[in-house]
Amino acid sequence: MKVFIIGVGLIGGSFALDVKTAYDSVTVFGIDQSEKHLEEALSLGVIDAKATYEDLAQADVVFVAIPVNALTKQLSKILDLVNDDAIVIDAGSTKEAICELISEHPKRRNFLAAHPIAGTEFSGPSAALHGLYQYKTNIICEVEKTAFKLQEKALKIFSDIGMRIRYMDPKSHDIHIAYTSHLSHISSFMLGKTVIEKEANERDIFDMAGSGFESTVRLAKSSPAMWAPIFQQNKTNVLETLEAYIKNLQEFKQFMEQEDFESIYEAMENTNKIKEILKGITVKH
Amino acid sequence: MKVFIIGVGLIGGSFALDVKTAYDSVTVFGIDQSEKHLEEALSLGVIDAKATYEDLAQADVVFVAIPVNALTKQLSKILDLVNDDAIVIDAGSTKEAICELISEHPKRRNFLAAHPIAGTEFSGPSAALHGLYQYKTNIICEVEKTAFKLQEKALKIFSDIGMRIRYMDPKSHDIHIAYTSHLSHISSFMLGKTVIEKEANERDIFDMAGSGFESTVRLAKSSPAMWAPIFQQNKTNVLETLEAYIKNLQEFKQFMEQEDFESIYEAMENTNKIKEILKGITVKH
Repeated sequence: MKVFIIGVGLIGGSFALDVKTAYDSVTVFGIDQSEKHLEEALSLGVIDAKATYEDLAQADVVFVAIPVNALTKQLSKILDLVNDDAIVIDAGSTKEAICELISEHPKRRNFLAAHPIAGTEFSGPSAALHGLYQYKTNIICEVEKTAFKLQEKALKIFSDIGMRIRYMDPKSHDIHIAYTSHLSHISSFMLGKTVIEKEANERDIFDMAGSGFESTVRLAKSSPAMWAPIFQQNKTNVLETLEAYIKNLQEFKQFMEQEDFESIYEAMENTNKIKEILKGITVKH
Repeated sequence: MKVFIIGVGLIGGSFALDVKTAYDSVTVFGIDQSEKHLEEALSLGVIDAKATYEDLAQADVVFVAIPVNALTKQLSKILDLVNDDAIVIDAGSTKEAICELISEHPKRRNFLAAHPIAGTEFSGPSAALHGLYQYKTNIICEVEKTAFKLQEKALKIFSDIGMRIRYMDPKSHDIHIAYTSHLSHISSFMLGKTVIEKEANERDIFDMAGSGFESTVRLAKSSPAMWAPIFQQNKTNVLETLEAYIKNLQEFKQFMEQEDFESIYEAMENTNKIKEILKGITVKH
């Protein structure tokens, strides 16, 4: 099996590693606009060989893991180049724009719109992890638009690397993911910004920050090149979450100003049920 | 050595466990307003015996780990009851109110104002952890107001359980901790609230939330009984952080509305330096 990874960073690189573990007879080719990343992926054993778009005709599977603004620019071209039996899977964090863009493409049936809910705050080939996808959810959109045999091929791979599948329409995906992922990133980035602006003397952060701060601000290490385009493509939904979040913060602030600590207690107590909700999430690091 | 723990929850209980590991000849007594917690701490081996305020005269060391509103009510009484050679250490997350309250107490020299930067989002005796304090920072305020011999006694214990010490005045403590800890909790609680409000159907959270959401919302599992009083006692500083945070979120929102994704990219990129800052934090779970 010839698997082509376009974008050999955290997401593409981890997929490469897992596929190589799952199958004996697989060759993983890497394509990346950064020659440095490609060399790095090769020397780390993330990919077996470097390739270019001209080689895509040989591909059985193409996994596209590039920022969503690059994805909308490249996907048509990629589909043009693959053969009729190839399956092209994307890993973009937004789904509506890409599904719409590709809806009339003659090779629409060769494309599977996916969003593996997996990752870390790090990026690049050196961030690729063995087993990143194990026990994780893969959200697949518009599955009915993908050729049945190619669906099967893709699902077999996801199953072999340990993922569970959830089907969803692109619109619903983009709304829910704005709440469960995109807003977390903004909240974390702005928390980091606020603390850095205040604490010009970084030693004070260093000394007084505990595991709580570290955990809440972890996502602020994420790649702007990946995240700015996500916010752009999911603008309407993200703005809705941001509005709701700011409103809750303003209410909390107002309670404090009014010395209404009973309402603050209550708001926190009601939110404690996130404990039970999170128990369902199996996260293996 | 007779060590009394007042409040046998996460913080007090973990201190008890570490002290018992560090010393052969120590007896740990527990005092708690909850008989259930006391029984639990005893059966878990967190404490050696149950005690009451009447036993405090025997104490060599008293470690007070109760919510900060209870602390301001109890500390005077506790100091009244201990003998002249006892050291009373608190673990409150705010320091200005307690230091001011106790400033004229005849046994001020028996008190050491401390804030161990350690914890988890869980509470109660069953949340007590061996080694919680190892490599963690203990912030000590107004050390000069504690009798020298008693300072030495306390510092020896902190050192023996693996803590490093940082000295700070109570006012600075409360300002900095508002940014590095209190704001993180509000940001996390309000994130949890926002997502729960939107996602009435919890299966959607469960399926689509990854490790990023989990990490950002972790602190929303924290105890309201502990946190509402902290926000109350540190009201002025917390309001300042909250204002700065909301302002940054509003600016982010405005950039999005104006389709100014360059400014969004820039804000994120500037915040990425939190990576370097966090590298300095040694967090062992």
